[in-house]
Parts: sequence; structure tokens; C-alpha cells
Amino acid sequence: MNAPWITYRPQIKVLDCTIRDGGLINDHRFDDQFVRAVYQACVGAGIDYMEVGYKSSKQLAARDKFGDWKFCDEDCLRRIFGDDPAPVKLSVMVDAGKADWRNDVLPKQNSVLSLIRVAFYVHQVSEAVDMIKDAADKGYEVSANLMAVSTAKESEIDQALEGLAETPATTLVVVDSFGSLYAEQIELLVKKYLDYGKATGKEVGIHAHNNQQLAFANTIEAIIHGANRIDATMGGLGRGAGNCPMELLIGFLRNPKFKIRPVYQVLQDWVLPLGRQVEWGPLPQYNIAGQLNQHPRAAMAARAGDGRDNYVDFYDKAIADV
Amino acid sequence: MNAPWITYRPQIKVLDCTIRDGGLINDHRFDDQFVRAVYQACVGAGIDYMEVGYKSSKQLAARDKFGDWKFCDEDCLRRIFGDDPAPVKLSVMVDAGKADWRNDVLPKQNSVLSLIRVAFYVHQVSEAVDMIKDAADKGYEVSANLMAVSTAKESEIDQALEGLAETPATTLVVVDSFGSLYAEQIELLVKKYLDYGKATGKEVGIHAHNNQQLAFANTIEAIIHGANRIDATMGGLGRGAGNCPMELLIGFLRNPKFKIRPVYQVLQDWVLPLGRQVEWGPLPQYNIAGQLNQHPRAAMAARAGDGRDNYVDFYDKAIADV
Repeated sequence: MNAPWITYRPQIKVLDCTIRDGGLINDHRFDDQFVRAVYQACVGAGIDYMEVGYKSSKQLAARDKFGDWKFCDEDCLRRIFGDDPAPVKLSVMVDAGKADWRNDVLPKQNSVLSLIRVAFYVHQVSEAVDMIKDAADKGYEVSANLMAVSTAKESEIDQALEGLAETPATTLVVVDSFGSLYAEQIELLVKKYLDYGKATGKEVGIHAHNNQQLAFANTIEAIIHGANRIDATMGGLGRGAGNCPMELLIGFLRNPKFKIRPVYQVLQDWVLPLGRQVEWGPLPQYNIAGQLNQHPRAAMAARAGDGRDNYVDFYDKAIADV
Repeated sequence: MNAPWITYRPQIKVLDCTIRDGGLINDHRFDDQFVRAVYQACVGAGIDYMEVGYKSSKQLAARDKFGDWKFCDEDCLRRIFGDDPAPVKLSVMVDAGKADWRNDVLPKQNSVLSLIRVAFYVHQVSEAVDMIKDAADKGYEVSANLMAVSTAKESEIDQALEGLAETPATTLVVVDSFGSLYAEQIELLVKKYLDYGKATGKEVGIHAHNNQQLAFANTIEAIIHGANRIDATMGGLGRGAGNCPMELLIGFLRNPKFKIRPVYQVLQDWVLPLGRQVEWGPLPQYNIAGQLNQHPRAAMAARAGDGRDNYVDFYDKAIADV
């Protein structure tokens, strides 16, 4: 081995999910200017995809209780991105059990979206398979995002991947929703996903959360073992502890098509000011939730309350739940 | 491979360097109560060593311009730790070129210190070898800490390790002073240090900085490849981007002798309030310095000035220096 860390793999594509994952901490209410600034940063930085939100069911979530990016109606998309968002491809996430996907995912020729990412828990894999087929039939590139994989058994993951292998999804994403996985586990999962996807030529992706300050490191680990579809967000903006920070990822990737300066520009102009209104990052309650492989909701509630500085109290309650 | 991440290696020992590395951001001025609280956390958490500061030359650094922990005079040590700090072993760092080590490192029978860590740049290895012999002759356990290894050539590192292999140092520490190394580089260095230390039974250590949010991940990587002497600090407190956070490290180590609750206690009682007075952590300027393998001094100056929120200006100046 010489110095592989100064080389690059041209197949690697980066997806910015700042607005999608960040929307989970502000009820998807972003100023249009903020969304445009992130888009411009993606264009400038050479980022391949930008995921802008969800297609959520309007039966389950009242339209007026959330910002536009929980629904991503076509008119909202076009208001910001016009009729042609190239060179960046736009993506939305569609959650199993929470979406009216047969109606709300339009035929591709009627949409500026390019990529549909189907998100689901392991027990929802049957609906996910139907969703993937539906989106592919409508003309989209489709990604299968099995969430919270750290809480599923290996046999369940195998079962789900067996089902997904047959679908037209072109990417299988390793999703560490709870930010609890260590590098050795990432390696095993990436290799497993690659194995299942090999016969049908699927790529493997990585979506990491930063509860233990491992989002960037686990992303590197996934890349080393063959993941070519990489999620990150500007400043790590995202639910709870946040995601893999784009400024770190782009600093690591050596493909000269990626540029880091536009990322620092959007951080200083937009993400830093947002950080004075909403909170995210690997704070102690998120460390604890990640260490215990727990959903971040209790940690988010603790951070939002008067006891936010009482880490020990949170710890004592968290281990009582294990 | 089953699940090695739930097992442990009993040989792993943890060194807390909160006061020593943290002293670099407050001129080594800690309240006695703060130092005692960190010590009590180390006792409670089962931490093996606590590094409390430097032995700096009083000719080069005026005694009244710095706090006690830049000098670690024996009376200061005993004021806090009494005559017997057990079960925690106390350590100081002694810098080549900046210490009057022949006089200021007392014979061990006159000191509460157990471990002397000799810190040096690669071109100072000859003085370091003398310092190591002196401290070992005086009765101490000695560690050799080759700083800023990311800026040294492989041939220089080999030369230094060849010299160190013959010394009575019992530990060789991989020190990523600039927080610029990626996991693959950590692996190579740990293996190299282990190779050079093998004949004389030396342990390998890891001291990581958090410029790219990789301090904890690189520490895990070092452990996986055989490092048994692990540095961390409470809340990551340390120069610039800070160090590997103790609360993350202890959460990863599975030896039941380590307890995490006392760490969260000292974070909430002492480190959080300190964070309102001094700043550390993987902020954008430190990200940039780490990505460019630069000393953190320019980033520290930028964070201390009016332009602290102008990341792009800092980036433009930093790449002009490459």
C-alpha cells in the first residue's frame, strides 16, 4: 500500500440531504433563500444530488402544520429550482407507512425530481418493494434506504436484502439512524449490501448520524469498503446529532470535480445563522443515545427542556430503558 | 469475525490529559477545584493515568505569566493530589527544547509523579533520547511522544523510531498534533511503531486531535491495530479542535473496570461551564487546518478575532500558505 488517501474513485457520487434531514428539526420550514443557497452551494461544489424533503401523506400530516419540504409538491419544487435543476439531480425521500406514494409520486415526465429514496424499517420491506417498483415504473432512479439497521437482527437484514435484490432499486443504503455503529460494523454491512446487490449491479450508499462523532469516519470506512453513494449535509445539519458534515467529506474526496469553498461559503452565510435558532450536533445526550443504540427522540426532548445541562439525569434514565 | 466490538483487551490503559492539553487554551490556569474534579472523575471512571501539565523551563517561560500547570512544581502537585494519588497515576509532559529537564524532573522518590512523557519533533529526537534516559534513570515510567508526525517524512519517522527503540521508554505514542490523519494512515503508523517497539516490548499509544472530527474514530482505529495506551480528555478539552472525548472513548471500551457516569458528571459540573469562557472543538477553521495539515495557530488566531465567522476568508488565506 502506498497512499490511497490521496487517490479517488470516479464512481463516487455525493448526495446533499441538508434540507431533507435538517427539516426534521424545524418541521421542514426553511426560507426559500436558504434552500436556494444550499442548492447554489451544491452546484458550486460539484455535488451530484440534492435531497430536498419528503413526500408525506396529507392525510397523516396536516399540510398547514409543516413547511413545504415535508410534502415537496411539484409547484414548490419548481418555485425554487425552476424546470431544470441540472447539473444537480433532485431527490425526495418517501417513507413506508407515511406516504400516499401511488398518488403523490408523479410520473417522472411531470416532475423535476430524478431520484426517489424509499425509506423503511425492516418490518416494512414488503411495502418498500412495492414502492420501489412503483417509482421505477414511473421512470425514476430509486434508492432503498433500510433505516435503523443497528436495531435489526442480521437474519432480518439478510431477509430484507434478499427481497430488495430483486427490485429495480439501483442503490442500497446503509443507514445508521441512531449513530450507534462502529467502523467494524460499517465494514460488515457495506460488504453484505454489496454482496446482495452484486448480481443486479446495485451500488451501496452510506447515511451516517453523528451521535458519537463517527458520522464522517464511518462514511470514510464505507467508502474504503466500496460504497459509492455518499450522504452528507452542510455543517452536519440534521436530526439530533446531525449527519456527516459535507465540509469534511468534500475535504476528504480527492476527485477534483469537488470544490470545498462553496461549502464554507454556505456554512458562513446560512448554516451558522440557522445554528443560533435551532440546535443539532453531537451533544452529550446524543452521545448517550448513540452509545445505547436508542432512538434520538428522548435526547431531543431533553435538549429542548430545562434539564438540557443535566447529562447525568439523562444518562440514568437512558440506562433504565435499556 | 463475530462481534469484536463488544469484547475488550485488558491491556488497554487510558490516560486523561484534560489539564495538560486543555492548559494550552487558558495558559494553564485552572482553579484547584477544577483539577480536583477531573481527578475525582478519573478515579470514579477507572482511568489509569492523569496528565496534569508540563515541566517548562522557568528561564524560557516566566513563572508569573502562566498558571501552575505549565510547571507542575512538586508543591503544586501535592496541594491537589496529596502524597498519594493512587489509584490514578500522575503524568507530566516534558518538551524537548523547552524544559530544564535535568533539574526540574526530580528523582521519582521525591515526587508523586509516575510517568514522564517526553514530547519532541522529529528533528529533536537526539535530545529526546537523552531525556528518556534521564527520566528512566530517575525511576520513572517513560513515554516517547513524537509530535506532529503528519508533517514528518516516512524516512524521518523510521530514523526516529530506530533511535527510540533502544531507549528505556516503555511506550511510543502516535501523535496527530494537527488532526490531519485519516484511519488508513493511523493503521500504518500504529503498525510501524509496534514493529519498532516489538524487540524491547514497548507499547504503542495514540494521541489524536479532533480537527476533522476524527479523533475518536482514529483512536478506535489505533486500538483495533494494537495500541494499548490511549489518550483522551473530558469533553475533548484541548488545544484548538480538542482531543478524543473521554465520554466517547469510555463508551466504546467494554472493560467493566471503566465507568462512564463520573465522566458525564464532570462534563456537566465543570467542563460545560468552562466552555462558556474558552472555546475548543472541531470548528470550521480547525477543519480547514486539519484538511491542509497545518499547525492550528492561525486557526486559533482567527477564532479569537473579529473575523471568526468568516470561514471563506480563512480558507483563502490557508490555501495561499500551502
